[in-house]
Amino acid sequence: MMVPRGKNLPVKHPLNGTAWPMVKRGSNMSAIKQPNRLLIEPNIPNRLLMGPGPSNMTAEIRRSQSQSLLGHLDPNFLKIMDDVKEGLRYAFQTNNALTFAISGTGHAGMECALINLLERGDKLLVLESGIWGTRAADLGDRLGLSVVKVTSPLGEPVVLDAIKEAIEKHHPKVVFVCHGESSTGVCQPLEGIGPLCHKHGALFLVDTVASLGGAPFDADKSEVDCVYSATQKVLNAPPGMSPISFSARAVESMRARHQRIASFYFDAFEIGNYWGCFDEPRRYHHTAPISTVYALHAALSALVKEGLQASVDRHRANANLFYKLLEEANLRNFIAKTEWRLPCLTTICVPDGVKWNVVQADMLMKGIEIAGGLGPTVGKVWRVGTFGANCTRENIERVVSELRKSIEVAQR
Amino acid sequence: MMVPRGKNLPVKHPLNGTAWPMVKRGSNMSAIKQPNRLLIEPNIPNRLLMGPGPSNMTAEIRRSQSQSLLGHLDPNFLKIMDDVKEGLRYAFQTNNALTFAISGTGHAGMECALINLLERGDKLLVLESGIWGTRAADLGDRLGLSVVKVTSPLGEPVVLDAIKEAIEKHHPKVVFVCHGESSTGVCQPLEGIGPLCHKHGALFLVDTVASLGGAPFDADKSEVDCVYSATQKVLNAPPGMSPISFSARAVESMRARHQRIASFYFDAFEIGNYWGCFDEPRRYHHTAPISTVYALHAALSALVKEGLQASVDRHRANANLFYKLLEEANLRNFIAKTEWRLPCLTTICVPDGVKWNVVQADMLMKGIEIAGGLGPTVGKVWRVGTFGANCTRENIERVVSELRKSIEVAQR
Repeated sequence: MMVPRGKNLPVKHPLNGTAWPMVKRGSNMSAIKQPNRLLIEPNIPNRLLMGPGPSNMTAEIRRSQSQSLLGHLDPNFLKIMDDVKEGLRYAFQTNNALTFAISGTGHAGMECALINLLERGDKLLVLESGIWGTRAADLGDRLGLSVVKVTSPLGEPVVLDAIKEAIEKHHPKVVFVCHGESSTGVCQPLEGIGPLCHKHGALFLVDTVASLGGAPFDADKSEVDCVYSATQKVLNAPPGMSPISFSARAVESMRARHQRIASFYFDAFEIGNYWGCFDEPRRYHHTAPISTVYALHAALSALVKEGLQASVDRHRANANLFYKLLEEANLRNFIAKTEWRLPCLTTICVPDGVKWNVVQADMLMKGIEIAGGLGPTVGKVWRVGTFGANCTRENIERVVSELRKSIEVAQR
Repeated sequence: MMVPRGKNLPVKHPLNGTAWPMVKRGSNMSAIKQPNRLLIEPNIPNRLLMGPGPSNMTAEIRRSQSQSLLGHLDPNFLKIMDDVKEGLRYAFQTNNALTFAISGTGHAGMECALINLLERGDKLLVLESGIWGTRAADLGDRLGLSVVKVTSPLGEPVVLDAIKEAIEKHHPKVVFVCHGESSTGVCQPLEGIGPLCHKHGALFLVDTVASLGGAPFDADKSEVDCVYSATQKVLNAPPGMSPISFSARAVESMRARHQRIASFYFDAFEIGNYWGCFDEPRRYHHTAPISTVYALHAALSALVKEGLQASVDRHRANANLFYKLLEEANLRNFIAKTEWRLPCLTTICVPDGVKWNVVQADMLMKGIEIAGGLGPTVGKVWRVGTFGANCTRENIERVVSELRKSIEVAQR
């Protein structure tokens, strides 16, 4: 097995410990023939998507995507972008002018945040309670940042005292927090972190990919300087965009950079101009994914219709129902305390002697997608998302009932 | 007007010379109210999209996007990804194992290519015949590369002798070429550049965003080491993904890196693993934009149905018709020689005394999108795309006929 010859490249994959890949040279191919397999219509069965995302689209969102395209600078399209911006400010609960959606998935949001807020050599403090903290730290390393971590025990959030101590010791430029840690099911309490950051001149960065709309979040009240999310969880839109917002404090800090932003695609000032966040004419930056913007508009429209608070309350109430049904089924929640749990994503302990993947495969056979663990929870849990329109009593009852049966099958 | 205080930040925007933006602080908002404007259905009129992209989706592609989502690791979805890979190898005419689609638009393809092929301090030679060369050079500067440029006279490609001289003088690690320069309408001849690169140990990188499927291109025969494209031009899929392919030579070079790739989202080895390009189990890298992958599948299916050569021939024949009709209308092609012209995107000189933007606006009123110039061609040309299914005799006749009328309106 070949490994990279580069001095600083890890031989093992940083997240899952597998070796780096060897390239398959396409040796079976001798000429580039017409790939007739593409002439066969893909088989797309209807699934109930109760994994950690994507969730199911609503009928309105599905319909929105089949609408004809507009040009990326068409006045009618710019109007839709303006609406989407307002919807995102509402979802994030912020007045931030620099609020838009990146043309990439949730990961792109993380990358855009770090690459704009920090320069090579800057210090990043990561609160790590699962894979998203691990990934932010790894990305920081790739970007040439100086990264320090505070790691919580598995299945628990990071406590405020530990955060305070780390900020006072390391004086980071940015503190990264994952609000909804979808690998463990932990919901990190945000209270007090913002003011602590600002007391020590740090910026407060929050990942709400798995939490936005499903757990209480208020960017401005929590003094958040940068927050990003994704479209395919509570919002029920297809994956492909990452909503993001920067506070005035973050913008000031970005203006004071000494190095240019090491990306054009993720340059928040450039994207912000295209999204009309500034008092200046819009310039072409890139061609927005028009259909996905339509879908995001439809998704935010649904959120506004229900109301953000009502959405959060519904996720909370249905989570409580979920916990009760799991208890009745003798299934243990991976997160000990209810107040640590992410309402829209539940991690269920895999009982001793049960093969998690056999259960997952059996559920999929029945048309229900749930996921196994990720990173530190691989083999330990199933992860069940109850996102947005999927978060109903009927779906939760069905999942628990079918999960019980699939566990029985796997134990046979 | 505030400007960034950073030492190395340009006061003027590098591409269009405007000043850097000042942030509007959202001063009109006092609280985050429900944005009721989102409850109004967006107005999406039917347009004939004859600009430089996006082009119109076909009915099949539109339909593909409204299909229900699958999980990003669902076996049925992985099968679709496998089909898409085969389709992309066909479109690029390559056997490269490391072929996939990035979850971002065409710009993301450029960024992924440079960030994987080069490290800080490496030398990049850019052949500049319009904005895409300018942008690649600017991105190289952001990434800490040492950038040299060979610039052609406006409206002309770079000649092989100049390329040879620059390679011999600068010994670049990578030579960047934009095949279809959509800002000027130039189609850069690729003959001879690949062997020249390889004789001098350089990698050959080609941007085919605006040309793939509409102009002859054969990655393997032209000894291309990395090529990327986009979905919303000849392929008629919505914007949102960037197909890309790396040669074995490129992969060897990437393995020999000393620095880690300064991105996770664009790490070609990580994405390639998720796309199943390697002899190893797939890992989760990010959540692919499922709907856009469906659309790309439908688009590649249409390309296979027609045949790549037939598609290229059709674009060529219709371009000739277009040139003839323009001549009859006394409109001048911006590119002097036919062999320099990109068949799927035509640049038309704005006649003296005619306001280009009045004409563009009048065309849009009639439901036809065409574009003005970009970068060095602003105010000088209109850009008309004849991409994929939009490339018909009827559409071209309609555009020329309506353009004549709109010019008359603008002259009144």
